Amino acid sequence: MAKLKGKALVAQSGGPSTVINSSLCGVVQECMYSPHIEAVYGAHNGILGVLTEDLFDITKEPKDVIEGLKRTPSAAAGSCRYKIKSLKESRKDYERILEVFKAHDVRYFFYIGGNDSMDTADKIVTLAAEMNYDLRVMGVPKTIDNDLAETDHTPGYGSEVKYLATTVMESGRDTEALYTFDTATVVEAMGRNAGWIAAGAAIAHRGEEDAPHLVYVPEIPFSIDRFVADCKDVLKRLGRVVVLAAEGIRDIKGNYVTAQSGKFAKDSFGHTQLGGVAETLKAIIEEEVGVKCRYNKPGTAQRNAMHFASLTDVNEAYLVGAQAVKEAVAGKSGFMITLIRESDDPYQVTTGRANLSVVANGEKYLPRDFMNKAGNHITEKCRRYVTPLVCGEAPITIGADGLPEYVRFKRCPVEKRTGTYKV
Amino acid sequence: MAKLKGKALVAQSGGPSTVINSSLCGVVQECMYSPHIEAVYGAHNGILGVLTEDLFDITKEPKDVIEGLKRTPSAAAGSCRYKIKSLKESRKDYERILEVFKAHDVRYFFYIGGNDSMDTADKIVTLAAEMNYDLRVMGVPKTIDNDLAETDHTPGYGSEVKYLATTVMESGRDTEALYTFDTATVVEAMGRNAGWIAAGAAIAHRGEEDAPHLVYVPEIPFSIDRFVADCKDVLKRLGRVVVLAAEGIRDIKGNYVTAQSGKFAKDSFGHTQLGGVAETLKAIIEEEVGVKCRYNKPGTAQRNAMHFASLTDVNEAYLVGAQAVKEAVAGKSGFMITLIRESDDPYQVTTGRANLSVVANGEKYLPRDFMNKAGNHITEKCRRYVTPLVCGEAPITIGADGLPEYVRFKRCPVEKRTGTYKV
Repeated sequence: MAKLKGKALVAQSGGPSTVINSSLCGVVQECMYSPHIEAVYGAHNGILGVLTEDLFDITKEPKDVIEGLKRTPSAAAGSCRYKIKSLKESRKDYERILEVFKAHDVRYFFYIGGNDSMDTADKIVTLAAEMNYDLRVMGVPKTIDNDLAETDHTPGYGSEVKYLATTVMESGRDTEALYTFDTATVVEAMGRNAGWIAAGAAIAHRGEEDAPHLVYVPEIPFSIDRFVADCKDVLKRLGRVVVLAAEGIRDIKGNYVTAQSGKFAKDSFGHTQLGGVAETLKAIIEEEVGVKCRYNKPGTAQRNAMHFASLTDVNEAYLVGAQAVKEAVAGKSGFMITLIRESDDPYQVTTGRANLSVVANGEKYLPRDFMNKAGNHITEKCRRYVTPLVCGEAPITIGADGLPEYVRFKRCPVEKRTGTYKV
Repeated sequence: MAKLKGKALVAQSGGPSTVINSSLCGVVQECMYSPHIEAVYGAHNGILGVLTEDLFDITKEPKDVIEGLKRTPSAAAGSCRYKIKSLKESRKDYERILEVFKAHDVRYFFYIGGNDSMDTADKIVTLAAEMNYDLRVMGVPKTIDNDLAETDHTPGYGSEVKYLATTVMESGRDTEALYTFDTATVVEAMGRNAGWIAAGAAIAHRGEEDAPHLVYVPEIPFSIDRFVADCKDVLKRLGRVVVLAAEGIRDIKGNYVTAQSGKFAKDSFGHTQLGGVAETLKAIIEEEVGVKCRYNKPGTAQRNAMHFASLTDVNEAYLVGAQAVKEAVAGKSGFMITLIRESDDPYQVTTGRANLSVVANGEKYLPRDFMNKAGNHITEKCRRYVTPLVCGEAPITIGADGLPEYVRFKRCPVEKRTGTYKV
């Protein structure tokens, strides 16, 4: 494959994760190492920054800021949820992207994101080929949801699980101490469609005493009656119950539990109650099980908890970023870097490649045999899969005020070379 | 003061904290060191365990479990919220406590808790004196709320703040990356009556960009109109806003914000909405400010986050526990150990003593000058007070599965010597 000289552009997309900047660091440092890549630009706020030509020169950032990305949560370049549809429907957007690339002699595009991003990247590859524009595009997997096809797991998942499992463990100790008063606790996990996060965090349940005592995922239809029975059963054995539920749990008809459960659903004006799954399950426990219940909703804190991130995850996030650059420089294009698990114990991974289009159209749900028959807790198979991903503690820098020090780009703008574009 | 030989009893009370077991460890290890103390009993679930004579012998626990208490969150002996009233109203309960003490030759009672516990301890002192029963009682301060009188701060507060400030910082990075979509985030802090926790966690705001951008505490009446204006102001400057609010914020009439704000309050059946402050502020932001808002409610996770505890706090919690024993053995009774700040920089503390009755009847609110004039953020004075308390990272043990290892008592029961007692 011929050598390709030019600039690299990197963008981050979708919901942040604890390690998406570790991947960014891998991309940037590897780009700066390559003699073929003349500069690395960042797109401010993902693909929005490309469309509006809002670019900044990462090569001009201080070296310690670039190094500090490894230990900084969320998306330092900025992210977005702007959705570009098919080439047919959104051709104008794709043409605009290529216009910006050409204007800046961008020859390498690295897109860190989930399946929507891989879909966008795939279409950019197609259009560039149509237009005979020499461009290499590589996808870098990122999602706390762990639902990307073709890869054993996704960077972001291990840290999400390490933090959430610890949160559940610690919340469980609270309930254990105060069960004569606060007898039940519900913890809400992220996960609209897939149960990977809730199932992963369930490894905190090392023994019967340990929270979570019950786990619910979107893949298994949720029944209030069974839930009430499950809670009563645990209460009988332990005198307390800690429930871990994915935000996306739904009933047999596919309706989200937050918007389906009779008196817990809407007020008489038809307003949906303010709360989500955690509040709904709390209400069910208090009214149907008859014990006092608390609820914890870590929310976005769970996907940015660099203060207790998985070292395995941080390292793999960096690895897939750097590997994407290596392969692009070597001539590859149109792929997402994947993680291949060579063995569980000792845990070993290598990287592979998957076609962007295959990743774009796949979605990976929690296998049924990762959950027990009753559908209310995980199996050993799940634990074996998850455990290596949360191992190791990633070091962070702590300031003189006792709090983490995270970096921020100064973001030196790249001069615009095209006209304005309305998104 | 005459030497007093006998057993020691220790109990934990009220809401757990990250370091209440560090204090327990201090009590137990110091007791085991003293030749006057023949055994250390724990009351299972606080004063409830005393009343029901549900005691266990801590001296029989493995040494590594006792040592591990230093690094285990929540209340390992169990806690409760059982409230004993005045000597007049609850004399039966107090007499029962003395009955159990006498039956086991308990001569030292250490009570780890907040002002209700100090009140109970104070009355035990009074009744023991009336009955001519030679007993030494010492209080060990514990509350994440930091609202105890007579002490510069309370063990539990520093770790609470370190974790919550970090959570706000990390949630803030999420909003910063995704502001084109999720423009606002509300984080709910504990604190029903006092704003210490929310104000403390506000130190995460090191510069204009840093969350939290707005902070609300119970001591300053909350106005929806001012809140909406505050949010709009921050949005104008930064394009995003992260709000940190204490769960106990209330309006000018003293009504909790969760139960007062018109259409956000109750449904037409008069049911209070399921959610709390965070959900209410989210609704206000979405409907009145007009931007999408997320909310995070760490809930009980924030008072058990040993995985990122303040070393200063852990050490001080141990110190006040051990000091209580030293002073009791030396002849003191009827006091709570206090922390006296000798200097801010370098931070230095010593211990002191306060009369139990004084602590019992006091409550310490956030000083007005810890908040700015607008009542929506902290001052430098607050930052100077809080910062030393969160410094240092407490070491924890991590298991082979990448998660913290916390200890649990096996709880060898002490044989009952009295009849049953109905609580």
